[in-house]
Amino acid sequence: MSMSNQPAHEYRIDLNCDLGEGYGAYPSSSDAQIMKYITSANIACGYHAGDPGKMREAVQLALAHGVAIGAHPGLPDLIGFGRREMAVTPQEVYELTLYQIGALTAIAKAEGAELSHVKPHGALYNMAAEREPIARAIAEAVYRVDSRLILFGLAGSHSIHTAEEVGIRTASEVFADRTYEAGGTLTPRHIKGAVIHDSSACVRQALRMIQSGEVISREGTPIKIKADTLCIHGDTPEAIEHALQLREAFEIQGIKVRRMGER
Amino acid sequence: MSMSNQPAHEYRIDLNCDLGEGYGAYPSSSDAQIMKYITSANIACGYHAGDPGKMREAVQLALAHGVAIGAHPGLPDLIGFGRREMAVTPQEVYELTLYQIGALTAIAKAEGAELSHVKPHGALYNMAAEREPIARAIAEAVYRVDSRLILFGLAGSHSIHTAEEVGIRTASEVFADRTYEAGGTLTPRHIKGAVIHDSSACVRQALRMIQSGEVISREGTPIKIKADTLCIHGDTPEAIEHALQLREAFEIQGIKVRRMGER
Amino acid sequence: MSMSNQPAHEYRIDLNCDLGEGYGAYPSSSDAQIMKYITSANIACGYHAGDPGKMREAVQLALAHGVAIGAHPGLPDLIGFGRREMAVTPQEVYELTLYQIGALTAIAKAEGAELSHVKPHGALYNMAAEREPIARAIAEAVYRVDSRLILFGLAGSHSIHTAEEVGIRTASEVFADRTYEAGGTLTPRHIKGAVIHDSSACVRQALRMIQSGEVISREGTPIKIKADTLCIHGDTPEAIEHALQLREAFEIQGIKVRRMGER
Amino acid sequence: MSMSNQPAHEYRIDLNCDLGEGYGAYPSSSDAQIMKYITSANIACGYHAGDPGKMREAVQLALAHGVAIGAHPGLPDLIGFGRREMAVTPQEVYELTLYQIGALTAIAKAEGAELSHVKPHGALYNMAAEREPIARAIAEAVYRVDSRLILFGLAGSHSIHTAEEVGIRTASEVFADRTYEAGGTLTPRHIKGAVIHDSSACVRQALRMIQSGEVISREGTPIKIKADTLCIHGDTPEAIEHALQLREAFEIQGIKVRRMGER
Repeated sequence: MSMSNQPAHEYRIDLNCDLGEGYGAYPSSSDAQIMKYITSANIACGYHAGDPGKMREAVQLALAHGVAIGAHPGLPDLIGFGRREMAVTPQEVYELTLYQIGALTAIAKAEGAELSHVKPHGALYNMAAEREPIARAIAEAVYRVDSRLILFGLAGSHSIHTAEEVGIRTASEVFADRTYEAGGTLTPRHIKGAVIHDSSACVRQALRMIQSGEVISREGTPIKIKADTLCIHGDTPEAIEHALQLREAFEIQGIKVRRMGER
Repeated sequence: MSMSNQPAHEYRIDLNCDLGEGYGAYPSSSDAQIMKYITSANIACGYHAGDPGKMREAVQLALAHGVAIGAHPGLPDLIGFGRREMAVTPQEVYELTLYQIGALTAIAKAEGAELSHVKPHGALYNMAAEREPIARAIAEAVYRVDSRLILFGLAGSHSIHTAEEVGIRTASEVFADRTYEAGGTLTPRHIKGAVIHDSSACVRQALRMIQSGEVISREGTPIKIKADTLCIHGDTPEAIEHALQLREAFEIQGIKVRRMGER
Repeated sequence: MSMSNQPAHEYRIDLNCDLGEGYGAYPSSSDAQIMKYITSANIACGYHAGDPGKMREAVQLALAHGVAIGAHPGLPDLIGFGRREMAVTPQEVYELTLYQIGALTAIAKAEGAELSHVKPHGALYNMAAEREPIARAIAEAVYRVDSRLILFGLAGSHSIHTAEEVGIRTASEVFADRTYEAGGTLTPRHIKGAVIHDSSACVRQALRMIQSGEVISREGTPIKIKADTLCIHGDTPEAIEHALQLREAFEIQGIKVRRMGER
Repeated sequence: MSMSNQPAHEYRIDLNCDLGEGYGAYPSSSDAQIMKYITSANIACGYHAGDPGKMREAVQLALAHGVAIGAHPGLPDLIGFGRREMAVTPQEVYELTLYQIGALTAIAKAEGAELSHVKPHGALYNMAAEREPIARAIAEAVYRVDSRLILFGLAGSHSIHTAEEVGIRTASEVFADRTYEAGGTLTPRHIKGAVIHDSSACVRQALRMIQSGEVISREGTPIKIKADTLCIHGDTPEAIEHALQLREAFEIQGIKVRRMGER
């Protein structure tokens, strides 16, 4: 089932960002400055990044800013930051997803907080978008550990369709700073132009996705797309500038920025 | 507060064993055969041993045998199996305890199970027994994540006293196959005779601890000791033999073998 | 360039086995008993298995038995024992191969030993066999760190051809207990019959490969194959039995069992 | 044996800095800017920080600047950056030191470079300074793997004395930005004033150590100290400022800044 149930002319969007992605002596330096722009924080859980202390700091930061807390499970590849695909089985994915959600749940609970969502990280996110068995493993893990959690996945992908079959709520995620292929997938980063650097182009793409439910592909064709949550990055000056421009545009356009599930 | 509240002439004991202590390709080979002797399983949580798959198998095994499931958090030292003391701060201990309890909680929940207890592993167990700030960090973590969990700690040590101050239930753990010093601590393993290899000597020590509330120290003096739970090992033929002899003796003596908290 | 330069009627073979594949508290239990059957030991280097202590023990064991010492580098995936393919770049493969060879070289040097060869492990071995850029990365690493080292790779694969282009010596590896596809690759393990359990069938396949330079594929067709070294496993009773039968057959047939490069 | 053999009025000093201390996605950001101030680079080897790619970059950077390359082995504690003491045995220290030196040696060799020295990191450095068996384990590892390597250790400590007994060359290390206790040890960081923030105070302390062979302790007493190499940090703006001031002062005073062993 889908979360969004909007009246015809009231547009709303959730803004999510990855947080707590430091490790040990390596800080998650940009966490604090991105908080004021977002409504959902995806907190790394120790596999691709994050350690118990960093996770706790990120939970505290999210609580202080009234931002929804979500688990951001990744592949067990710290050296590759969870960005390298691995031949993990669906069963391994099911188990490592449970493990990481549980670890963050306990840390959040000790701070008096609850998880609201789960967004897989990096290669795991992409694998879930492209392969039904991986998507199902993640959705089952979420369903079994807490069926009220909302699964964030690439709009239009296996991540979303499979989660709806399994019976958990979803948030279709879109990207303002990435171009789309005609098939609805993101243009791979190694292709020139895959990343949109111009803030006003980001804003235009975001508005079109939210207000018209479509995005113009790299080839120039319009694609239908559902925009529940928009991914914000916090790790470059450019990213912060994008976030600022997006928030201003949303305010002018009357698009409400709300976390998933909030009235 | 303490868990035990026994009528004068009815003796009871919990028997606990560490489980799921394999990792990846390395099995937890003896798990299955020890299950029929124990009432509480302490499951490794990925730091000193254990991985999400091993944890799930151990939970399933405990469920199949009606054995209480507990978290067995350790220091982040896989290569040293969590047996090497590390200069971790109380805050680090607090956080890594939460992390590991949470990870197992989620895996258990997905199998329809709940945790009943927490027993720190190896060097962490010893550090908690000897140092109040470490004991407090663990007790606080348990209290914050689920105040109904029972903390297993060395009988008479900081682990128990501090947990009672913090306000969680405890189980005082005793050892049948280890000698005690006059001060009530275990004789360090490197001292000759620290490990009792003879099964009937183990049985005698166990019975005395349970029925008389005392143990005879290596120096020959009696020490008062509270015996809520007895540690069973499952990793050697000798250990299995000890377990078998203990169960037989308990049956003959009318000592009820019950998990903590069970009526 | 190839190592083998045999007179027409004198057959010889190297027998290699993976060693030191324990980690921390997890032993490499079968190392000692396989030593008397082999001439080359491939020692795990800490990424998929092995730690500095295990590596040193394996070096000492190989020295005591006069067995050639080789590095057995793997992917950085301890939990998956290096058997799960990862999307590592050739540059990453180049660097992690150097790292692992170097680590073992120092441990061997401290024991007065030198490395003779390198055999990649698990998924890395397969990736090198199938993909030229991965094969090249490994061969370049070997060439740069010590161009006298012999690279072990799947007979007839990219591993061998690329290493010869790069200019290092090779040993074409064959398997007695695995079936081959018509294209010369190993039948994947998940296909029924991929593993040959019968020792006499193993012996027949080994003799044909060594004496006739061919193997009969699963489909029944003969395939040309070069057999410099034969992979021996040491981790099951069956494997030990295979090794024993192979050694007896080689003795009867007058096939000399010699390490690579030995006169 | 000691490296230094200076004529009465020609003063010289080596300036060393830790390098390559990133990991995976986490950069070693300040490496490039500190290179022009130093003569010896201590490169992390993967245990407390560093990965094969970071190690290679650091080697290339050192080569480009003509800076001596050394191994910087640490405890296996990535999450604690090797700063937390661990109860490792001398044998474990011996083995992990070999492992890490070897790994860097191979990466350097592939770049056409050789190691000149070894400087233990963090807790391992301190443990070697304070405990003879740990110092001996490291010195033996260095001796066995390459007896020409120079061991860097705390001036006046077990690290230096034991290495000289074992028969390897040493470099006595001093600190310009840390105060000393009357016994010749560094004031622990948690004590107020332990770190000297003022660049000119750093310069004064450095000059006195080099030119007079003494340092004034926190208590005000002079202590004899041998200054072969001075530790430079590169990770803060303050540290870069210190380095700049030190180089200027050395130039004015005619103190030659030379790597160890250089004529």
